[in-house]
Amino acid sequence: MRAQFDHPPPIVSALQAVLPVGCVLFRLEDTRPYECDGLSAFRQPPLAVALPEDEMQVLAVLDVCRGHGVPVVPRGAGTGLSGGAMPMEDGVVLSTAKLNRIVRLDAMSRTAVVQPGVRNLAISEAAAPYGLYYAPDPSSQIACTIGGNVAENSGGVHCLKYGLTVHNVLRVRVATIDGEIVELGSEALDAPGLDLLAVFIGSEGMLGIVTEVTVKLVPKPAVARVIMASFGDIVTGANAVASVIAAGIIPAGLEMMDRTSSRMVEPFVNAGYDLDAAAILLCEADGTPEEVEDEIARMSAVLREAGAGAITVSTSEAERLRFWSGRKNAFPAAGRISPDYYCMDGTIPRKHLAHVLAGIAQMEVKYALRCANVFHAGDGNLHPLILFDANRPDELARAEAFGAEILALCVAVGGTITGEHGVGIEKIDSMCVQFRPAELTAFFGVKHAFDPAGLLNPNKAIPTLHRCAEFGRLHVKHGALPHPDLPRF
Amino acid sequence: MRAQFDHPPPIVSALQAVLPVGCVLFRLEDTRPYECDGLSAFRQPPLAVALPEDEMQVLAVLDVCRGHGVPVVPRGAGTGLSGGAMPMEDGVVLSTAKLNRIVRLDAMSRTAVVQPGVRNLAISEAAAPYGLYYAPDPSSQIACTIGGNVAENSGGVHCLKYGLTVHNVLRVRVATIDGEIVELGSEALDAPGLDLLAVFIGSEGMLGIVTEVTVKLVPKPAVARVIMASFGDIVTGANAVASVIAAGIIPAGLEMMDRTSSRMVEPFVNAGYDLDAAAILLCEADGTPEEVEDEIARMSAVLREAGAGAITVSTSEAERLRFWSGRKNAFPAAGRISPDYYCMDGTIPRKHLAHVLAGIAQMEVKYALRCANVFHAGDGNLHPLILFDANRPDELARAEAFGAEILALCVAVGGTITGEHGVGIEKIDSMCVQFRPAELTAFFGVKHAFDPAGLLNPNKAIPTLHRCAEFGRLHVKHGALPHPDLPRF
Repeated sequence: MRAQFDHPPPIVSALQAVLPVGCVLFRLEDTRPYECDGLSAFRQPPLAVALPEDEMQVLAVLDVCRGHGVPVVPRGAGTGLSGGAMPMEDGVVLSTAKLNRIVRLDAMSRTAVVQPGVRNLAISEAAAPYGLYYAPDPSSQIACTIGGNVAENSGGVHCLKYGLTVHNVLRVRVATIDGEIVELGSEALDAPGLDLLAVFIGSEGMLGIVTEVTVKLVPKPAVARVIMASFGDIVTGANAVASVIAAGIIPAGLEMMDRTSSRMVEPFVNAGYDLDAAAILLCEADGTPEEVEDEIARMSAVLREAGAGAITVSTSEAERLRFWSGRKNAFPAAGRISPDYYCMDGTIPRKHLAHVLAGIAQMEVKYALRCANVFHAGDGNLHPLILFDANRPDELARAEAFGAEILALCVAVGGTITGEHGVGIEKIDSMCVQFRPAELTAFFGVKHAFDPAGLLNPNKAIPTLHRCAEFGRLHVKHGALPHPDLPRF
Repeated sequence: MRAQFDHPPPIVSALQAVLPVGCVLFRLEDTRPYECDGLSAFRQPPLAVALPEDEMQVLAVLDVCRGHGVPVVPRGAGTGLSGGAMPMEDGVVLSTAKLNRIVRLDAMSRTAVVQPGVRNLAISEAAAPYGLYYAPDPSSQIACTIGGNVAENSGGVHCLKYGLTVHNVLRVRVATIDGEIVELGSEALDAPGLDLLAVFIGSEGMLGIVTEVTVKLVPKPAVARVIMASFGDIVTGANAVASVIAAGIIPAGLEMMDRTSSRMVEPFVNAGYDLDAAAILLCEADGTPEEVEDEIARMSAVLREAGAGAITVSTSEAERLRFWSGRKNAFPAAGRISPDYYCMDGTIPRKHLAHVLAGIAQMEVKYALRCANVFHAGDGNLHPLILFDANRPDELARAEAFGAEILALCVAVGGTITGEHGVGIEKIDSMCVQFRPAELTAFFGVKHAFDPAGLLNPNKAIPTLHRCAEFGRLHVKHGALPHPDLPRF
């Protein structure tokens, strides 16, 4: 790690010339808080941190960095779990923390225009007086910002019914590395030209800096109730998930926890979980009281038919929140029972849930490590928490190998290596497994169109072909589901 | 127009060498059927037509064209309305007509994998035995193909509730001009890397040739009923649309027709429309019988409150189809009462419906031409039909100016120049109004990443900056809604 500067590097005075006093950090004690994001295993203080206060200052920061050939790492609240905001030793962190204004909220058209540093939950709080809210609700929603949500295409427990960030953002205003402002998307349903809004959402800071986001707001449901169902074995639970969806029901949330998870979390939250159940399913219905009553009845019937043991339905808002509290606190609970844990984020077609869970159980034996499974079952987004102790020889290496094998299994059944946490630096090598060289080349082509010099968040999210060759992995995409009758190239 | 060849051009024998007998057309009598698409005002027979029968042959055609430096114009069923499949005199039309196989249909995971030349309706027909269907339903669904739907991001009367093509396609397999196969998207909810699937959908054949599409199938609703409501003036009708949406209802269809339209179509279909009403609204509910009954009751109450006169609810499937028949036959009816018509496709934020309709009424006076308004009111997608007679001096020019002014008004209120028909050659100049130079440059950057030599459907969909300069139009984006407090560049 670099020692503190004797003299600040030239970029610092250049940034100071275009930003207000106090908006450029460069001393190690000031840049230290930015040395990692939620993926805290990797740390690196940046060359400097720039904190622009408006769009014009964002453009000025990009102009200075472009002029100096210095990489720019954008950062929201730093809650990301894949190292997307991990600084570079020779790069500037551009923090959107001071771009934190709700520009306007239009209850009639159900939209809000916000700056990127506005917290996810703050949007819903501002919309609450109008009976509206912003639907995507990542676990970090108290802290994470909408700009970071755009960068990672964040989800949450409600995204099965209400969609990911990409389904809830209408328009972004972006400062490009070339010093231009572009607006992607539209408040109308469809826009002509190429759909660059969707490309931008989830692009992990590689294409530009968001300066403004127009989000959809949706009416707060009058009522929500949740079913807690127990299953004697995990395969039956996984098949019950498929049965709910197959019945044409789209629950507001459909989450599953295995016994390891429920036993891990129950002592901390007293959610009232059935600790003998091999798996617990939480199924939420929201809407008008009549709709909720109807959907709860239909879901209960499907779950019972699918082999559920005990079925409990929340009878009050307090009880509903209590049922959810265990699911929402699974990660902190893992941190309390295990010195270290490694959270994976694979997504699979729902029909392969039982098969993949069985595979993970075999890997627990193979790697001699425990794995707690909590996940967005409804959309096939797994969050296996591999528990380990980094102080024991070999455990970190075994946990990493375990994680990589889970992701390879996800890809083999037609799934993906990340559902909502992004690729960042953590999963960049698994991208070589997921994609063909021609596909990675297409990604770089688009990246190059926005950022020809490669200054925006370099070495994240997309591996170079060279890196994949060194990593020595061939892609296994759809490897388990070969095409029966069409030639492959 | 070019005379018939004495000797076929060299590209013909090169294509014949890689395709089966009968799959290369080059005589004028054979290429004539391909000289235009649904935008029949412009005609140009192509150099040749290639009809590959499988993916390997698609790659071979692209390889030959790349080798000869010959442009490629992809074509589905040729039902497009903006000239996206308009041939080039020196280009090859690549027709997907023979790629017409349903590869597989998985009722359990509710997906179908189809080749691009499969007709939209054929997917729903194949899914019907499983109680499923493919939701996007453009008016041309009997004829149009899924490949063309992908190219244009097609919608339909049900897209308010069920989404556009981009919301109903999970994955595409694409042959690139470089001879590679890439797969964009995934059967899982989200995919890592850049969301190139969304960019590809609606890219009007500029980025690659679709060889396979994986679509979502949805359960066919048990029941559907439609409300027909009359309004004494069009502004009240437009405001009623906003009221329905504001009440938290998402109808399965929400369509509006003005008096000009209903009087135009009624003699042909006998739909039973109220010909004294200034506007008729059709609001459909679908789902279980209980859901439909509840939603019909809520929508009726909102419409009555919003000032509707007569309200009729369909009591049988035959009656429901009869109510819709007028809306679905508006275009053919226009062709029967007017020698020519020009169909526009602007999309606006719903709240500006009344304002834009009033503006169109003023333009009818200004240009001395009648305009029938039929539209997807729920999602703000207008289809003004400008009626004219091309044989009368000046009427075509007035109709074009009328259309351009409608689109400029759409853009000025924050809307777009196309909802679902695409840009093609028809609206390419209006793109200069819609987008900033930096935004057009970003589009070309992405285009260049996929097609560096610019061989795929050139001169469509995206205007060059040079063309915009010649056209002499500055972009007016959000011109009527200036940003109150942020600087603009």
